[in-house]
Formats: sequence, structure tokens, C-alpha cells
Amino acid sequence: MKVYEFKGFPNPARVRIALAEKGLTEAVEFVSVDVPNGEHKQSEFLAKNPSGTVPVLELDDGTTIAECTAITEYLDHTSGETTLTGRTPKERAMIHMMQRRAEAGLLDAVGLYFHHATPGLGPDIEAYQCSEWGEHQRQKAIAGMHYLNDVLAQNTYLAGEQFSMADITAFAGLVFADFAKIEIPAECGHLKAWRERVSQRPSVAG
Amino acid sequence: MKVYEFKGFPNPARVRIALAEKGLTEAVEFVSVDVPNGEHKQSEFLAKNPSGTVPVLELDDGTTIAECTAITEYLDHTSGETTLTGRTPKERAMIHMMQRRAEAGLLDAVGLYFHHATPGLGPDIEAYQCSEWGEHQRQKAIAGMHYLNDVLAQNTYLAGEQFSMADITAFAGLVFADFAKIEIPAECGHLKAWRERVSQRPSVAG
Repeated sequence: MKVYEFKGFPNPARVRIALAEKGLTEAVEFVSVDVPNGEHKQSEFLAKNPSGTVPVLELDDGTTIAECTAITEYLDHTSGETTLTGRTPKERAMIHMMQRRAEAGLLDAVGLYFHHATPGLGPDIEAYQCSEWGEHQRQKAIAGMHYLNDVLAQNTYLAGEQFSMADITAFAGLVFADFAKIEIPAECGHLKAWRERVSQRPSVAG
Repeated sequence: MKVYEFKGFPNPARVRIALAEKGLTEAVEFVSVDVPNGEHKQSEFLAKNPSGTVPVLELDDGTTIAECTAITEYLDHTSGETTLTGRTPKERAMIHMMQRRAEAGLLDAVGLYFHHATPGLGPDIEAYQCSEWGEHQRQKAIAGMHYLNDVLAQNTYLAGEQFSMADITAFAGLVFADFAKIEIPAECGHLKAWRERVSQRPSVAG
């Protein structure tokens, strides 16, 4: 398997953590895509992923899989017990619900802020920006942090007592928030404690 | 099980189709939430779903599951073979990839256009609107139709030769597009033929 990515960026980081959680890091070849110079928007890469985003998982039969949820579903079902996406119908449902909330309410909101209300990756890549929407998404990300904090006041992890792909997504969202200079509100102590707990996992600490 | 919804709206329609595909329609009680009058934004409903969206699936143990992907994962895993979310790791991955593309690239884009660049559900409900972003999402939805048309030039259904939850999502996206007056481009013949095929399924035709 190959993973097309740009190391250190938020979505590639999600797949790196999922690979480490599944013990699959050594099973893939990482191929660097020069995102800062727009390689992900050029035709050779768009043939692998018409959405023009990294990461992309390429299977040995040439199938290309984009979108972190899809890649994580593949990795989780291809190697041992489904530890990241749930074992029972109810676990699966809770994990996918929190995955969507962590994406829409935090990671994607931070991304929209970064790409629309800051210089983002620069004028050559950010062909269209809507700063009003970007600022609105900044507020959404902060509201998302408050929501996740409320969840973590009740649960050890976002979808219950087990670590899951939703935690990976929210963790990547907070790393992106640091980069975009969106601070975790001081009163979100549960979120901060959870972040510390997640950062100590071998898959994250490296 | 209960499903909180507003009949005829796009996301509730997705769950109605999934229920019918799984033969579960008779197993649930439908509870109408008065979305046009803002009941989904009031505290009683927000306790069930803090995101303030329908549909919500409530299990007999009181667990509430929001987000259509999560609800569909539950329904598909709780009743017979997993016909909507895939049987193999690769099928699961392709379905989740196309689910995300059908959501972000069509259904959610149409929704953002409707809620931001038209009167939407009216001034009492649409507390914040960003018309520039809404218009941009209209263009994204049309680009999404072209993309789905390209996929359907190769495949019978969006994730391959089997109908899946990604088809449900895209179908609901086109129904919403009709309502929001975003037409399928004339040259998208594969998308139109697929829509006709899907509309004849018993789960959709009713």
C-alpha cells in the first residue's frame, strides 16, 4: 500500500495515527505530495483524487481511496479487531456520529478559517477566499471545542470509554487550531486533559 | 426505536430510504419535529441532538444517534447483511469515500446554498446568513453533479455495482437541488439515468 500525503498536515496526521494504532505503519510506503507548491491540484494527482486533497491510500491493485473516514474504515477492517470504528452496531453509530461532529465542528471549521480568513497556503493555492465565512467558522470551531469539552466531562473518549477514530480527528483538529492560532478556551479543562491523554499514546507520541 | 424527523426534508428522507432498504420501516415510530417553526432549535430537542438537526434515531435504551451516516451504520449492522455500508474492507472504503463526496460535494452544498443564499427557512430560523458563501456552494453543487456524472459513466452506482448509502445521499441531494432550483446540467446524462434507476427502487418509490 502507498499513502500520498504531506507530512505534518492535519489530515495526513490522522492516517499516520490510524496506521500506528493498527500496527500498519511499516506496511505502507509514504509518498510526499508537494502541497505547499500546489502539486495536489495538478492533473497527475487529480487522477488519483479528483478532490485534490491528501492523504490518499493506494492499494496494491491500484484502487485509490481518499477521505480519512474511508481510509480509516479500510485500515481498521483489514487488520485485526475493529478497534477504531467500533465492534457493535451501537459503537459504530456513536463513533460515526462523533467523527462527523469532530470533523464539521472542529477540524473542518479550523480548516475553513485557515483557508478563507488567513493567507492560508498563499495566493497561488487559495484561488477563492471568503473571509466572512472563514471568521464565522472560527467561531464554530470554538463552539465545537466547548461541545467536545462537554462530551469529555461525561466520557473518557469522544464516543465512550474506548479510543476511536473520532478522537484522532478531534486531536488533529486541535493541532490545526494551534497552527491557525485558535486557542482552546481556558474553561475547557476536560478537553485539555483528554488532549494530554491522547498525546501520550504511542501512536501519537511516536 | 424512534426516529425524530420532519417528513419530506432531505436528511430525514435518507433515513426513510435506509429503513425501507433494510425492511425496518415498521420497526420504528416516527416522531415529527416542527422544523419550519424551529422546534429543532429548542432545548427539549437539543437535549436529544445538540447539533439541532433532524433526523435523530432513539434506541430503546434511550441512546440518541444523530448524523445520517451514523444512523445508517447502525441500521445496516443491526439487521441482516450489511447491504448499505459494504461487505469487504474495500467496499466499505469506497462507500464511505463516495458518501463523503455526495455529502460535501452535493447535499451539504445545496443545503448551504439554500440556507445562506435564499430566504431558507425564514428569518426566525436563519439567524446568520452569508450569501456570498451560499452562492459559492451553488457552484460547488453543480461541480459535484458533474463529478458524480463522471463516476456514473463508469459504474452502475456511486461506489461500484451495488447500491449503497452513498446513492441514498446523492439522491436526497438531487431532490433538495430541485427544491432549491438548482438544475442538473443538461450534459449530465449518466446522473439523470442513475436518478431514474434509483427512483424506481421500492425503498424510494414507496
